[in-house]
Amino acid sequence: MWKNGSVYLLKLTEHFERLPGIGKKTAQKLAYSVLKMPKETVESFAKSMLEAQEKVHYCSNCYSFTDKELCSICSDKTRDESIICVVEDTKDLEAIENTCEFKGIYHVLHGVISPLNGIGPEEIRVSELIERLKNSKVKEVIMATNPTVEGEATSMYISKLIRNPEIKVTRLAYGVPVGASLEYADEVTLSRALLGRNGIA
Amino acid sequence: MWKNGSVYLLKLTEHFERLPGIGKKTAQKLAYSVLKMPKETVESFAKSMLEAQEKVHYCSNCYSFTDKELCSICSDKTRDESIICVVEDTKDLEAIENTCEFKGIYHVLHGVISPLNGIGPEEIRVSELIERLKNSKVKEVIMATNPTVEGEATSMYISKLIRNPEIKVTRLAYGVPVGASLEYADEVTLSRALLGRNGIA
Repeated sequence: MWKNGSVYLLKLTEHFERLPGIGKKTAQKLAYSVLKMPKETVESFAKSMLEAQEKVHYCSNCYSFTDKELCSICSDKTRDESIICVVEDTKDLEAIENTCEFKGIYHVLHGVISPLNGIGPEEIRVSELIERLKNSKVKEVIMATNPTVEGEATSMYISKLIRNPEIKVTRLAYGVPVGASLEYADEVTLSRALLGRNGIA
Repeated sequence: MWKNGSVYLLKLTEHFERLPGIGKKTAQKLAYSVLKMPKETVESFAKSMLEAQEKVHYCSNCYSFTDKELCSICSDKTRDESIICVVEDTKDLEAIENTCEFKGIYHVLHGVISPLNGIGPEEIRVSELIERLKNSKVKEVIMATNPTVEGEATSMYISKLIRNPEIKVTRLAYGVPVGASLEYADEVTLSRALLGRNGIA
């Protein structure tokens, strides 16, 4: 990078570069765009960054993000507390919430077990889930980790840990995505879709 | 977007979304990553944003970014002040600096003439360039705008404005990029490469 610009610009670029998925070129572009913003916008941006970092924390029940003690889902009395949907990330929780199909509550693991990356069950919120299930009226745990090798393994691991005959452990259905073309579906997905075939009502 | 998270998180996401090239999903990812940063990092990020916005401004001579009166290139006495390289953007200046081939000075237009987007010569730093050329010892102006229709037009427009027999106006060479394959070069590039062919020394 051209080192002659300004130390301030360089420092800001470096900060942007440390964000996930932001490379050198993009970081530079973003830093320049900040220079061109009105002063108030930059001030509000910086303030909102500090505020978010300071005030947003994990929900003490489900470990999604909230600025209160309990998140809006956990504190919502209309949600069905007998079904817990276990997701890897808050982004997955959002994706499921956006379907408007699920009325239960969540548990966010914040990662998946991945021995190759040195992430074991202790690094993610597994023990907190097991703790939640004790003395609770939970009837079903839906494992909604991603359909990847790690997601699968994590889901298997947790389902074995639960070991409670009163709690049904389920997994999201595999199959062809709606609107997709069979021609382009990979073999694994297609064979899972065959295996999981349903009767037509 | 899932509206139940936290207003602080939502606000931060919106700020990220306003940055160029950052969509909804990426903005969300970036906002989450800020939550996971250590407090000091977020503080330093926010500070560096405000500092950059406050202290970095245009160089009064070439309009690149600097935090001093003149940028490091304009204040460097070893640079050849008789050659000015005209670029669209500071990013292009950086690209040329990185070649270590150019020892002259620059002029940053901050845009190109683009009537379709309502950008005329007054919106970019054209008059400032013409002003710089008056009473100066400039012998050559290299037009290094991008090889696009707008870049071409801007370069033509400026070269006609200069109208000074003592100043040579040149343009970056067109041709096939080094390391590329002729097979994949587009027709226009290839025909420009043919027209601009050089003798082999």
